[in-house]
Amino acid sequence: MEFDLIVANGTVVTVNPDCEIIENGFVAVRKGKIAAVQPMTPGQTLPRSRDSIDANGGIIMPGLVNTHTHAPMTLFRGLADDLPLDTWLNRHIFPAEAAFITNENVRWGTQLACAEMLLSGTTLFCDGYFLEEEVAEVVANVGIRAVLGQGVIDFPAPGVPNPDENVRAATAYVEKWAGRYSKISPALFCHSPYTCSSRTLKKAKAAAAANCVLFQIHAAETADEAQRIQSASSVSPIHYLKSLDVLDADTLLVHAVWVDDRDIDIIAQSGACISHNAESNMKLASGIAPLHKFRERAIITGLGTDGCASNNDQDLFREMDMVAKLHKVSTLDPTVMDAATVLRMATIEGARAIGLGDITGSIETGKAADLIVLDSRRPHLIPMYHPVSQLVYAARGSDVRHVMVDGRLLVKDRQLLTIDTAEVMKKVNELGRKIVQRSFNHTR
Amino acid sequence: MEFDLIVANGTVVTVNPDCEIIENGFVAVRKGKIAAVQPMTPGQTLPRSRDSIDANGGIIMPGLVNTHTHAPMTLFRGLADDLPLDTWLNRHIFPAEAAFITNENVRWGTQLACAEMLLSGTTLFCDGYFLEEEVAEVVANVGIRAVLGQGVIDFPAPGVPNPDENVRAATAYVEKWAGRYSKISPALFCHSPYTCSSRTLKKAKAAAAANCVLFQIHAAETADEAQRIQSASSVSPIHYLKSLDVLDADTLLVHAVWVDDRDIDIIAQSGACISHNAESNMKLASGIAPLHKFRERAIITGLGTDGCASNNDQDLFREMDMVAKLHKVSTLDPTVMDAATVLRMATIEGARAIGLGDITGSIETGKAADLIVLDSRRPHLIPMYHPVSQLVYAARGSDVRHVMVDGRLLVKDRQLLTIDTAEVMKKVNELGRKIVQRSFNHTR
Repeated sequence: MEFDLIVANGTVVTVNPDCEIIENGFVAVRKGKIAAVQPMTPGQTLPRSRDSIDANGGIIMPGLVNTHTHAPMTLFRGLADDLPLDTWLNRHIFPAEAAFITNENVRWGTQLACAEMLLSGTTLFCDGYFLEEEVAEVVANVGIRAVLGQGVIDFPAPGVPNPDENVRAATAYVEKWAGRYSKISPALFCHSPYTCSSRTLKKAKAAAAANCVLFQIHAAETADEAQRIQSASSVSPIHYLKSLDVLDADTLLVHAVWVDDRDIDIIAQSGACISHNAESNMKLASGIAPLHKFRERAIITGLGTDGCASNNDQDLFREMDMVAKLHKVSTLDPTVMDAATVLRMATIEGARAIGLGDITGSIETGKAADLIVLDSRRPHLIPMYHPVSQLVYAARGSDVRHVMVDGRLLVKDRQLLTIDTAEVMKKVNELGRKIVQRSFNHTR
Repeated sequence: MEFDLIVANGTVVTVNPDCEIIENGFVAVRKGKIAAVQPMTPGQTLPRSRDSIDANGGIIMPGLVNTHTHAPMTLFRGLADDLPLDTWLNRHIFPAEAAFITNENVRWGTQLACAEMLLSGTTLFCDGYFLEEEVAEVVANVGIRAVLGQGVIDFPAPGVPNPDENVRAATAYVEKWAGRYSKISPALFCHSPYTCSSRTLKKAKAAAAANCVLFQIHAAETADEAQRIQSASSVSPIHYLKSLDVLDADTLLVHAVWVDDRDIDIIAQSGACISHNAESNMKLASGIAPLHKFRERAIITGLGTDGCASNNDQDLFREMDMVAKLHKVSTLDPTVMDAATVLRMATIEGARAIGLGDITGSIETGKAADLIVLDSRRPHLIPMYHPVSQLVYAARGSDVRHVMVDGRLLVKDRQLLTIDTAEVMKKVNELGRKIVQRSFNHTR
């Protein structure tokens, strides 16, 4: 039986359980799934297939997995940097969101984020924002895979002016999108333990559990948050969340910076997963999460870029490099966070952390054909001693040449096939000019 | 009088003393120098020039300055990662150097480094290695600007089998290259205070001073080094170097990680400059230099990538992002190392640190036309609130479209004009296969 598509003539970095690397191999796709992964022997002819992609000696690997972002916030990329956290949030980001987060703008921002993610090799992302239905509509059109969490916060929010309705609105969203589109998994995203009451958190987790969807929450991000929870509840944020019974294998804790060994015990015992957002934690000076301890306790941990207001990009190649280097210097141990470990976090472990590890995140037969091809004939990727080292320490998002999700090409020769990039950039630039104008008027 | 070249239709980020940004402007070049920097008014026609470059709405800025690298070490990019420092150095890098650092291989490695640096927007680099004359020959052919230091070490080294000849050989190299080629400044590079005796250090500094060239030295890089010097001399590495009288405004201290407040006083008083190599210090787990203190004491500090064995790239855009974020999180202060400060370190301050601040490093009339043009019509650079923020936090080396040094185009539309990239990549890949083979045989 012939294949639908074969990606051939490249080094296949599988990220399978044996971390297998096939120096010259091919990946064959049938009905959106990986049907064969094999080495090529000299002179061998490829099996029959309707279509083919020549990796041209580059690297064939699973698409990267971004376990935490706020896609529409590309609109605020670089609007405000290098500021104290409260100034940044209360005087710039929150006012900009209040004024500009409309249905239409969420769509433009999400398209821009999808464009950036796909062009830099991300095939699956986990989002948390408001008006998430708009995000879902865009994602369905673009064809990228995503876990999309409707935001829950005990303040008036875009689309949910009355906070009493927050969990109900999120639940309605989840019910509407559950099973509707194979590549979209709806989810709930509680903003944090300090912006959601205990009642809201319990209700939201119950709704997530009832619908078998992921429950995401920013937790233990800053020292200030930890102090607030400590003052109000006499325990750490993680302990507090445990006491509310919201920690289990379907909970994703985003950040987990201010956690001590007891908190880590709690997380490990609960089975909850972590999204580690190194660049965001660095730029906002939140702190350094004890990632090596998460690893020691076998807590499933993926990487996340966070939104563009706090990073300022969606490039997981840069994130991998940063993660590997940050934790070496913070522990003064050059052996921690080796390249293979970091690559696993950016692929299969990320997929597991958001509940999709059986479906995607590695090149294994039966999994979805969520693949990327990198061009390795670039000066900064020469010579090629160890592909995994090059991927983590030298490659850039711009080395990604082809991207497919479910076997469907979304980026071909660095060109997006399902997004009108020029139109999106034009619209977001126009919007940016309005945002700047308002910011100037506002601060006068 | 007509200009030789005009670069127009872009946002000019001058990095001049006022950090001026011209939203729509042009830079005119005559005889290799910047002859005019002006805003464009709507409908204005450009002055007459023989040639022109359309920045296409992108960013026109000074080329980046890499204050520390070992160019030929691109040959060892990714050969050995994630290892304890002594294993990495003694079992991988030193043996590979002993076996493969020949005149010819230095030339291939240097060409690869120049290709990578130019393609990612670096127009000036400061190098330290052995067989530096070979590096200089390549650099002269390529047309990039460089300060090139011949290595001095009290061990047999490539090209200098007898260490007693090390300073004499370096001095002969400096004398040969002084004034020979306007874009190359020869220099001396003492490896470190623990691999050069006090006598060697004093002789080398005297030779550098006699020839008015830069004296570079790795200093206070690791805790181990600091302990060694402390054991042998009862003082810190910086104090030790001061006692030898080798610190002055023509000395470049590379790394300066293990320095206390008294060391920083010594550096500030001496006028010595610093090359901060954040990514290398992170990857090798050396430690985090107190960069904010260098800034407070007005010590001139540039950025360096270090060699490819310890980074593993030569991309200063990635380095800028890393520097801005690392120091925010290490001080828990999001306001330190703001984007403008980091950009200055990667341009004008870097040029000052290696003695070329009057010649290059910013867009000002009379300075050399060492310019780069970035393509800003990319999803990850949209919207454009603050060009400097985008350059530090979102841009990548691959956004660089055109590069010129002394007004001569070296990269046009992302293509190198003075390096046969395909040939260089082929040769270095061949060499890489031999290096791997020997490594395998060696470790068996």
